[in-house]
Amino acid sequence: MSLPPHHDGSALYVPEQEPALGQRVPVLVRVPRGSDVRQVHVRTTGDGEPRFVEATVDRRDGHEVWWRADVEVRNPVSNYRFMLTGTTGHRWLNAAGPVDHDVPDHGDFKLVSHAPPPGWARDALVYQIFPDRFARSAAADGRTPPDWAVRCDWDTPVVGRGPQTPRQFYGGDLDGITERLDHLDRLGVNTVYLTPVFPARSNHRYDATSFDTVDPLLGGDAALVRLAEAVKARGWRLLGDITSNHTGDAHEWFTRALADADAPERELYYFDVPTGDGEPTYESWNGVRSLPKLNWGSAELRRRFATDPDSPLRRWLRPPYGLDGWRVDVANMTGRRGADAHTHEVARLLREVVAQTRADGLLLAEHGHDHTGDLDADGWHGTMNYVGFTDPVWSWLRAEPGDAGGREPVPNFLGTPGGVRRRDAHAVLATMNSFRSLVSWRSYTHSWQLLGSHDSARIRTVVGDAARQEVAAGLLATMPGTPVVFAGDELGLTGVNGEGSRTPMPWHRPQSWDVGTFAAYRALLALRRDTPALRHGGLRWVHVDADTLVFLREATTGTALVLARRAAGAPARLTGLPLEVGAASGAGAASTAGVASGAAGENAYGGAPPLRLAADGAVTLPGDGPTFQVWHL
Amino acid sequence: MSLPPHHDGSALYVPEQEPALGQRVPVLVRVPRGSDVRQVHVRTTGDGEPRFVEATVDRRDGHEVWWRADVEVRNPVSNYRFMLTGTTGHRWLNAAGPVDHDVPDHGDFKLVSHAPPPGWARDALVYQIFPDRFARSAAADGRTPPDWAVRCDWDTPVVGRGPQTPRQFYGGDLDGITERLDHLDRLGVNTVYLTPVFPARSNHRYDATSFDTVDPLLGGDAALVRLAEAVKARGWRLLGDITSNHTGDAHEWFTRALADADAPERELYYFDVPTGDGEPTYESWNGVRSLPKLNWGSAELRRRFATDPDSPLRRWLRPPYGLDGWRVDVANMTGRRGADAHTHEVARLLREVVAQTRADGLLLAEHGHDHTGDLDADGWHGTMNYVGFTDPVWSWLRAEPGDAGGREPVPNFLGTPGGVRRRDAHAVLATMNSFRSLVSWRSYTHSWQLLGSHDSARIRTVVGDAARQEVAAGLLATMPGTPVVFAGDELGLTGVNGEGSRTPMPWHRPQSWDVGTFAAYRALLALRRDTPALRHGGLRWVHVDADTLVFLREATTGTALVLARRAAGAPARLTGLPLEVGAASGAGAASTAGVASGAAGENAYGGAPPLRLAADGAVTLPGDGPTFQVWHL
Repeated sequence: MSLPPHHDGSALYVPEQEPALGQRVPVLVRVPRGSDVRQVHVRTTGDGEPRFVEATVDRRDGHEVWWRADVEVRNPVSNYRFMLTGTTGHRWLNAAGPVDHDVPDHGDFKLVSHAPPPGWARDALVYQIFPDRFARSAAADGRTPPDWAVRCDWDTPVVGRGPQTPRQFYGGDLDGITERLDHLDRLGVNTVYLTPVFPARSNHRYDATSFDTVDPLLGGDAALVRLAEAVKARGWRLLGDITSNHTGDAHEWFTRALADADAPERELYYFDVPTGDGEPTYESWNGVRSLPKLNWGSAELRRRFATDPDSPLRRWLRPPYGLDGWRVDVANMTGRRGADAHTHEVARLLREVVAQTRADGLLLAEHGHDHTGDLDADGWHGTMNYVGFTDPVWSWLRAEPGDAGGREPVPNFLGTPGGVRRRDAHAVLATMNSFRSLVSWRSYTHSWQLLGSHDSARIRTVVGDAARQEVAAGLLATMPGTPVVFAGDELGLTGVNGEGSRTPMPWHRPQSWDVGTFAAYRALLALRRDTPALRHGGLRWVHVDADTLVFLREATTGTALVLARRAAGAPARLTGLPLEVGAASGAGAASTAGVASGAAGENAYGGAPPLRLAADGAVTLPGDGPTFQVWHL
Repeated sequence: MSLPPHHDGSALYVPEQEPALGQRVPVLVRVPRGSDVRQVHVRTTGDGEPRFVEATVDRRDGHEVWWRADVEVRNPVSNYRFMLTGTTGHRWLNAAGPVDHDVPDHGDFKLVSHAPPPGWARDALVYQIFPDRFARSAAADGRTPPDWAVRCDWDTPVVGRGPQTPRQFYGGDLDGITERLDHLDRLGVNTVYLTPVFPARSNHRYDATSFDTVDPLLGGDAALVRLAEAVKARGWRLLGDITSNHTGDAHEWFTRALADADAPERELYYFDVPTGDGEPTYESWNGVRSLPKLNWGSAELRRRFATDPDSPLRRWLRPPYGLDGWRVDVANMTGRRGADAHTHEVARLLREVVAQTRADGLLLAEHGHDHTGDLDADGWHGTMNYVGFTDPVWSWLRAEPGDAGGREPVPNFLGTPGGVRRRDAHAVLATMNSFRSLVSWRSYTHSWQLLGSHDSARIRTVVGDAARQEVAAGLLATMPGTPVVFAGDELGLTGVNGEGSRTPMPWHRPQSWDVGTFAAYRALLALRRDTPALRHGGLRWVHVDADTLVFLREATTGTALVLARRAAGAPARLTGLPLEVGAASGAGAASTAGVASGAAGENAYGGAPPLRLAADGAVTLPGDGPTFQVWHL
């Protein structure tokens, strides 16, 4: 049995990865030999009208026929799909996969002519740090906790829900991070993402009182300079976190606006919101009064936040701070309120200003549900892909209450009522594919894939044990998208919800570290670093059963075969793979004809034996589980 | 076996059909008794953030539990979906149907707070007329054909493709239409849609030379007044056709622009388009030089076309012409070119101007592929639903070359290479559902459903015989959406492509009329007129097999059960329908308990026997075919 025809936006199929508006670029589709495909067209919808161009055979190899057509990048985002005609009529191939009936265009492949994200982001391995909980420098002891704070010892249990939650103050600071960069180096990341560092009235600092200084409790501006320099010295990147949706209610803009209805800051917010019962109020994030919502209809806000030469958006990207970009908090709500729909304008504005300030700046949007409508414009470079990665991975690997580490109640997904539902791999893949198919390959690969964050339960708590966490980390490190590790996950830390997972790093209790999990993360990230196909290759699914996911990452530089199993079961027997005996071992391209068996793939992670080809060209993958295995083909 | 839980945007489920921004409105979901549903939440995404509200049981009837929650119309288009929690976890219900895994938001139900379409449009039954080919008045004989024309006798065969195609001039005129309104009355329509009536240099008149007069070849302005008055006297509506994407190259605006680069008309078009080989040219529709494309970046165009007090958009909507609205030609391309993306602004502008000019004006957009991204804003009231209705119906009912009336080559769908593919009902329904799920119920029901038009093959040619055409006409008359009959279809006329289907009406050859087809159209349209559930009811699919589609149209006023079969086969046996013995015959709500069989539905179309309930509550539908049957429950 052969694999279905395949195309994705990777360089194997779209050699021009940065197409310009008006350019004609080739697109290729691979059709396994023996498929019922006699003719191939590419359909575009430039300027809103379908057009068909006939593809021609570009080349044939032992396994496949590659068809090619040139298509025009007629619009900033140009859709295309393939029409594959066989003896029984045509079917379509778009990013949602091959389909026998007519489907909407939203799943079409997309060529994006907007300026690409910075090159470094393609290879970023991000480590997320929540500063209050990461590490304390010696200087931290000398600081007086603020009035709002409940001072906590590093061993104080984190309270996940309650009035104390935002007030528990552990006193981690930026110099603490700087001192611990060797840990990140051992882990193998190359980008540090800090949740907010502005002064605030909570431990999470999403309620900034100013955007103009670094919180003195974190060591102030100078500590950020020291951290930025240390990060840069290692050749890494440093990202900040900025709240475009709201400020704190103690923010200098808001206090002036509140005090004086004629203040120039008044228009930065939404005042005079009817409450139904008396006094009007101001709009705030999800009704949380300490987080007044910014009004992006205001030109003054656009100036202060973004376009002003010394705006916060710009200032922290410049020397001596030199952040390499921003993660934008609550980007999903930014500019949206009632009839106001400024989100895309704001994204475009912020991106333009970031690019003016530093050409290699990254702008990454938080989004906790369907982000697909907010990408592929000239705004966010990518998003936090909770819905297309975190949620399906969780639902596949979730521990049952009876499993090792299983618990009740089951953690929920970003506020969705009830616990994460346990689902089979078919459902998981359907979810991944449906979100992936709605954005360009570029936006997909530049979005962050996470197993959790400071806003969610920790992956260890969700999956229950180290074995399933390794499978999760394997997917994190081998699927397209930017891997992001939430500090502490690599040590097997637990946490049942977002606030509860903001666990102090147990530096002083190395005996508590799950060194096996650390070693797995380290090896997996190294594998990604060392394998171009895992960073830039295409993605082809080749086998799915309830407990098993198998995919190829393919590039001109080589191919990786990835097996993820959540449980032991029947070994997957795969046919139709583009395997060559000896290819991976450097023995040259031996023919498979007449070869009963041979090494067709060397194991690169997980410890399974090399892949052996059966006489009929099939390979059988291990059936034990949970397991995560990678072979170089 | 019970039916799945159901919701759609009809009044059974959304009592407030015209929700205002900021309003809280109830939404209801029906869950068949015995379903594994213990708890229901509604998820909204107001201001870009998911929120969950728990639903409560509103009522129970013999078959179902109705759950209800109030949701806020937080944004102009407010999404919602249901979360149904049972013993094994939750699943979602959105407009794409119940689903067990997590899915993007594009299929969520939508509450639209923009001003609704005019009320009359809900009950419109449209008859499309291509004026050159409908009927000649006596005055037509006295007119001299223009220089571009090839004069044709009414019996001259239409040439579907070739240099003569746009030049064949049959001389139909507006008084000819006025004289033939009795035919429309017999058929049972109530809205006349005319393709363009402006002067032009082709028989189709999409290449207007002016928007300021009615073509004298059609009888001029006065003939339009006579037609409009005659239409109005019957209580009907009259729609025009306007080209917002382009004009003709002999249009007074374009000739001035072409003659003088400094003319004020220059900015109305796109000049100086590089050709790659010499002289720059102007942008035109699909490269057809006679149709120069309008540039909606031009403020002057917006003024001339729309906002000017005597603009063409306004003038023809006013007395004495009094058009009731416009079908907008090539709306899909209007305002789109390269980086220009003015489409939504233009739609909003045109709608605003139409509404200012007459509050009950309709604005309906042509769109030949995926229209879903262009609806539900404050622009087009609806679209020509070729992709979500015409195409799937064609592909289901298409004649095989060996069938009665089957032919080679098979007609194609709007330029898609190859003939229409024959597909089973599952594929057909998947296509219908996927397009439907992407727009609001309002946009779906106000879009035009067509079996063909002057731009496509005729339905008779596609399906091959009268029996399958009756099934197609049955779907046209009983599904949600505005039925549109292309003049001549009701007589069984044929045509293998758009141009070839612009057949003169055979008034003088009544012996050639397919009177059976006319009778079927007439009866079906009458049934729709007389059955509120067919006009305004919800849509619930209850059975699909390769050759069979069965659905319910349900309203507070009653329910219709519709059976469409393209071929004979195994009779469909349905269980779980909300049937009551005697309910439809007016005998009151008899209990089904203990009743072995009884009349649970009277046949209203097609001649099948009344529905009989078996002891287990099942009903068996006829297995003969092709057939189209409707019962009142």
